[in-house]
Amino acid sequence: MSISFRLSAVLTLLAGVAFGQPPRGPLVVSPQVNADKSVTFRYLAPKATDVKLSAQFEKAPLAMTKDAQGIWSVTTQPIKPDIYPYSFQVDGVTVMDPANEDFFPNERFKASLVDIPGETPLIHSLQDVPHGSVNYEYYPSVEGTTGSLVVYTPPGYDKNPGQKYPVFYLISGTTDTEETFFKVGRTNLILDNLIAAGKAKPMIIVMPYGNIAARIAEQKGGAKPADPTVRDGADAVKRANDFGQDLTGNVIPYVEKNYRTVANKENRAIGGFSRGGGQTLRTAFGNLDKFAWVCSYSSYLSPQEMDGSFSQIGGNPDKTNKQLKLLWVSVGSDDFLYKGTTEFMDYLKAKKVAYKSLITDGGHTWMNVKKYVADTAPLLFR
Amino acid sequence: MSISFRLSAVLTLLAGVAFGQPPRGPLVVSPQVNADKSVTFRYLAPKATDVKLSAQFEKAPLAMTKDAQGIWSVTTQPIKPDIYPYSFQVDGVTVMDPANEDFFPNERFKASLVDIPGETPLIHSLQDVPHGSVNYEYYPSVEGTTGSLVVYTPPGYDKNPGQKYPVFYLISGTTDTEETFFKVGRTNLILDNLIAAGKAKPMIIVMPYGNIAARIAEQKGGAKPADPTVRDGADAVKRANDFGQDLTGNVIPYVEKNYRTVANKENRAIGGFSRGGGQTLRTAFGNLDKFAWVCSYSSYLSPQEMDGSFSQIGGNPDKTNKQLKLLWVSVGSDDFLYKGTTEFMDYLKAKKVAYKSLITDGGHTWMNVKKYVADTAPLLFR
Repeated sequence: MSISFRLSAVLTLLAGVAFGQPPRGPLVVSPQVNADKSVTFRYLAPKATDVKLSAQFEKAPLAMTKDAQGIWSVTTQPIKPDIYPYSFQVDGVTVMDPANEDFFPNERFKASLVDIPGETPLIHSLQDVPHGSVNYEYYPSVEGTTGSLVVYTPPGYDKNPGQKYPVFYLISGTTDTEETFFKVGRTNLILDNLIAAGKAKPMIIVMPYGNIAARIAEQKGGAKPADPTVRDGADAVKRANDFGQDLTGNVIPYVEKNYRTVANKENRAIGGFSRGGGQTLRTAFGNLDKFAWVCSYSSYLSPQEMDGSFSQIGGNPDKTNKQLKLLWVSVGSDDFLYKGTTEFMDYLKAKKVAYKSLITDGGHTWMNVKKYVADTAPLLFR
Repeated sequence: MSISFRLSAVLTLLAGVAFGQPPRGPLVVSPQVNADKSVTFRYLAPKATDVKLSAQFEKAPLAMTKDAQGIWSVTTQPIKPDIYPYSFQVDGVTVMDPANEDFFPNERFKASLVDIPGETPLIHSLQDVPHGSVNYEYYPSVEGTTGSLVVYTPPGYDKNPGQKYPVFYLISGTTDTEETFFKVGRTNLILDNLIAAGKAKPMIIVMPYGNIAARIAEQKGGAKPADPTVRDGADAVKRANDFGQDLTGNVIPYVEKNYRTVANKENRAIGGFSRGGGQTLRTAFGNLDKFAWVCSYSSYLSPQEMDGSFSQIGGNPDKTNKQLKLLWVSVGSDDFLYKGTTEFMDYLKAKKVAYKSLITDGGHTWMNVKKYVADTAPLLFR
């Protein structure tokens, strides 16, 4: 290897990092998961005066300390194996970890992801099993716009052209995108592992984007809505209805035309997290002819909305219980939606609507979402 | 709509943004592309003392000014339509735009993307044409590791089970990931548009991850390499060879087993940007039995390496010119690799090796990469 090759490599490296983060010193390794499951986080900022780690495994930000090279670092206590979002607070400014390519897809906040492996592989880990494929698709959506879908097809989908599959429609939360169940929820790997263990039926999973209003504004106006309430505003019910109409009117027809599905209610499930859970419940309760399996993760409808908009659910529980093969409601005990969710469970119980519930530790987090997906996927299409 | 619905929507929103960027005031809209192709960028930071915009359409950072709500903003001059990376410099700290979900996948730097549409749709824009699919795949890679691929299949791929397709292997640059040609290069949309216009043959495009050493270290060690030279170091030739062996020994067999390909050299192309261009040239010149179409974007091999490692290319130009149906070399006139690339062209010319070249304006950027892909895809497999 000649010196010119070395120089070329270094120049190429400099070009790669020249934009956005000029080369300012040594390259740092972050995050570094240590053998004892502690994690060392590092951030290069020679001129900063205060750098903290903000991570979902800590209740409060952790102070970081600067070395002679200007690298701030902190090593945590051993952490319970899981995938956690985190960011750095650099003189009060929130930043992703520039040394880490694993990120949290989101409209509003920017976080990196750290994956702490278990002694035995966790259900969301990459294992040596047959893998499905994750497909990014475009479909014709409302008002002449083009929508985006992320679609998981199970292992063997391409090898078995005669086989048709059930479909699970899975909707992420406020400010999440259609990528969040894939990139943060690792839904594809959870299903790969469950299917390999014989614990879940092979299924297609369709992950749409929940924010219809933002898509319309962006594609029709050439810019994002100037009024933030259009994007993140109060009209949750209208937006959920718009979403439900796009799902049943555009997404499902697209999927059933382009994938080998079993196109009936017994082979259609719907689930979602947070806002996506509300969209799930409203879409399912308004379309009991289309979905037999319903999973609400960290979300609920109020008794007032149930009585006002979906009175047939509690009004005729025998019929509801025949129509729904699964109604699942789960929430974390520290979730700020815990109280509303337990009130929803109480409502269902009082109305004699059958449901399964799970209360976990923890809050309104994707650590819990992964657990809920892993717990509910085995129940579907049985 | 009752008050409780409103409250629920607001609480859900707060939950969505509670991590990483606490709600600190009004939600901002950024970037906002205006009718005259100027762009308004906004960043909420009431306590910051200095915020600048760093964007690839500007030679130097632009100052931003703060309003009474603490929102920093700047409106640019009208910008030539294209997709540009940008970030904010907040008191010297580089941050992505938290209001923008379009990001630049990268190992080292964190940038957002702004898409300025043309009066007539640009070749990389989302248009009302049949769309292909973009698939995330895992394959068995070197040393027992599992590699990642992003694979574009053209429109109609799933509808024509009897048809086989040529394959273009396309490799991104230093610190890029397997997602960069998709998310920044918009390679899928470029091909959708070229195919719809009859300008390119339907083809499969396979986008691997170029950093073999990092993957091995991460999967075998449970942590990223502590020695940054393992990740970004000087041994470009060894790493290019490792990459080439993985491509020919693992990626191509995986693709030809799992996709409907025409598995011969006349139907295999290889191309890449920057480090990926070096990997392209080394892999192609070392495997002339496997690739007939070769595209080097903003990259080159030195005359010393050509004479030392690939003397047969220039030594027997008649044979080379029969084996290669296309050797393409392109670079921007402001690219820091311009001189080396023109020396490479001069070498090929002196040796009577046939090649096509394109010198564009601009530098070592993904604006140029998109142009090079759009210019070369129509030439392939003709």
